Amino acid sequence: MAKSDTLTKLRVGLAENAYSICIGRGLLTRFELIRKAVRSCQVMVITNETVAPLYLETLKQAFIDLQCDCIVLKDGEQYKNQQSLESIYHGLIEHGHHRDTTLVALGGGVIGDITGFAASCYQRGVDFIQIPTTLLAQVDASVGGKTAINFGKAKNMIGSFYQPKAVFIDVDVLKTLPEREFKAGLAEVIKYGLIGDADFFNWLESRLPHFDNKSTAHLIQTVSYCCKIKADIVQKDEREKGIRAYLNLGHTFAHALEALSEYKRWLHGEAVAIGLVCAATMSYKLGKLSLESVNRIEAVIAQIGLPTHIPADIDCDMLIELMDKDKKVLANKKHFILLREIGDCYITNDVDDDLIKETLLSRQE
Amino acid sequence: MAKSDTLTKLRVGLAENAYSICIGRGLLTRFELIRKAVRSCQVMVITNETVAPLYLETLKQAFIDLQCDCIVLKDGEQYKNQQSLESIYHGLIEHGHHRDTTLVALGGGVIGDITGFAASCYQRGVDFIQIPTTLLAQVDASVGGKTAINFGKAKNMIGSFYQPKAVFIDVDVLKTLPEREFKAGLAEVIKYGLIGDADFFNWLESRLPHFDNKSTAHLIQTVSYCCKIKADIVQKDEREKGIRAYLNLGHTFAHALEALSEYKRWLHGEAVAIGLVCAATMSYKLGKLSLESVNRIEAVIAQIGLPTHIPADIDCDMLIELMDKDKKVLANKKHFILLREIGDCYITNDVDDDLIKETLLSRQE
Repeated sequence: MAKSDTLTKLRVGLAENAYSICIGRGLLTRFELIRKAVRSCQVMVITNETVAPLYLETLKQAFIDLQCDCIVLKDGEQYKNQQSLESIYHGLIEHGHHRDTTLVALGGGVIGDITGFAASCYQRGVDFIQIPTTLLAQVDASVGGKTAINFGKAKNMIGSFYQPKAVFIDVDVLKTLPEREFKAGLAEVIKYGLIGDADFFNWLESRLPHFDNKSTAHLIQTVSYCCKIKADIVQKDEREKGIRAYLNLGHTFAHALEALSEYKRWLHGEAVAIGLVCAATMSYKLGKLSLESVNRIEAVIAQIGLPTHIPADIDCDMLIELMDKDKKVLANKKHFILLREIGDCYITNDVDDDLIKETLLSRQE
Repeated sequence: MAKSDTLTKLRVGLAENAYSICIGRGLLTRFELIRKAVRSCQVMVITNETVAPLYLETLKQAFIDLQCDCIVLKDGEQYKNQQSLESIYHGLIEHGHHRDTTLVALGGGVIGDITGFAASCYQRGVDFIQIPTTLLAQVDASVGGKTAINFGKAKNMIGSFYQPKAVFIDVDVLKTLPEREFKAGLAEVIKYGLIGDADFFNWLESRLPHFDNKSTAHLIQTVSYCCKIKADIVQKDEREKGIRAYLNLGHTFAHALEALSEYKRWLHGEAVAIGLVCAATMSYKLGKLSLESVNRIEAVIAQIGLPTHIPADIDCDMLIELMDKDKKVLANKKHFILLREIGDCYITNDVDDDLIKETLLSRQE
């Protein structure tokens, strides 16, 4: 990895929990930068079997003067569970980690979420650092302090709001990311275009078909833009009492699809891709979004090669049932994030099950 | 239970998480008071097999207009574990509890700690209310927002700082508390005398031998005083960066004793009683506390009938080893709360293992 002096720094300005996001090329080898974020004499790196052979030895060089232990989890959403969490607790206790230790998440969204949750609970809270290695984690999961594990079929049902002490985003690591995962991450990038501003969406529309994880040309710009939108929203509403819910655009659908398939059929971003088209379709059916916008959204997603339809074998009634277990249900009413136009979304709880079903069926293959 | 108009209200003034502690007689039947603390249309009461037959049906009357579900755990510190926690999550999911539900802890410290922790993690945090039914929970565990479960041999190793929305302390329920548990609670009361002020300790010295859970004469006064000391400390230092650690006086010893005996040999308060005498002895050995004060502390604890010595069969080296896993270890050094005099304590990390061992051996039978 080439070192580079280009370093974009964003600040997430939360009163008690402010922290920096560093975005650039070759960050993983800027050991002094990463080392500076650790206040303790102990570090526990949590990663998975896919990422460990690629980047673990490099990262460990940053902590050469510290007690540095590692836990390597299996790779996949199905391991974002209680069992993995307990293996982290066991590792921390076994290696004698104290309340001033630092956990380091080296991996995608699963590793980041579970590491953050473990950090929030171990000894009632220890420091943690995010080093996201997938596009999805870089643009979305690593920023904002949502941590969680899945519980049974319920996605992210157990978790906490717990901010990292620092986020290091090295776009160079995306070169080793499988194409399927890179594309899945682009679904969240498109989401930011839809909730953030229409100009960014327009820019994405023209660029995305030519995006490639092998070339980092537009990557720093794109990742920075997404992180900036997310940081702005999180600063205004850390605990999702209001506008933070916008970040869930498409996710009520996506979570139900993922739960129904036990997190095996789609990558999270792929389910989000379908969810975004569903949300756009529902917005159209409610008379809010133009058909032209729905078609533009579907087109940009399809162009990347992401799914835009619910497969024929999926039971839409079961999807609706699963939505009832969604965290966005309040006062027994399902909540949806919908679009007035591209770049302008809103929250509603005024959608009846008939319209949900009509939407799902119209998006089914 | 007789209704009474005597109601002491304390306020825990934390910026975002302020809440009231109501202390009085017959509170459990003041349904409108309890009902008012619930903002949701769903309630989940967590209690145990001992408390449920006594007070669950009464409490449920407060929630007659809500969806009210109950989980009854087994009674005992050994059930303050991951398995009980998961049974709460399962119950919440099974009964369709949403992010606006309220958990109600009806029981002692174990129920309060585990319910608070479940509330902090379920859907990344839901409301919870404390209704403590033991003296120990009323004077200590229910106030301040420390939640936890034990993990393996490590006491309170997994948890969070998470404040309740309200605390209702009905001293009438202490009438059904077994005498052994009542006495165990008095150990924490004495702790407040030692850290809080010498006058309270003097008052306790003269009153405690005549204390009785059947008479509520001095109970409201005592419970209120302890809660007030705790609330003052928690307001100044919610997350135990400094003086909140004073509340752990005697607890480094107590936790090691409890862990070694797998939480079966002593009630928490009994282990604290031994721990308080150990802390006083160590303070004396360091030349801080007078021998007369050590003797007064030991005498008041012994007079109640609480243990003051480490049994002969306990391996003191193993106790020291367990202290290394204590949450108060920072920068690889054990921290102790010690006494300069009665009513004046301090934190130190400057105690070597030889002195710890000397202290333990001198307190061994």
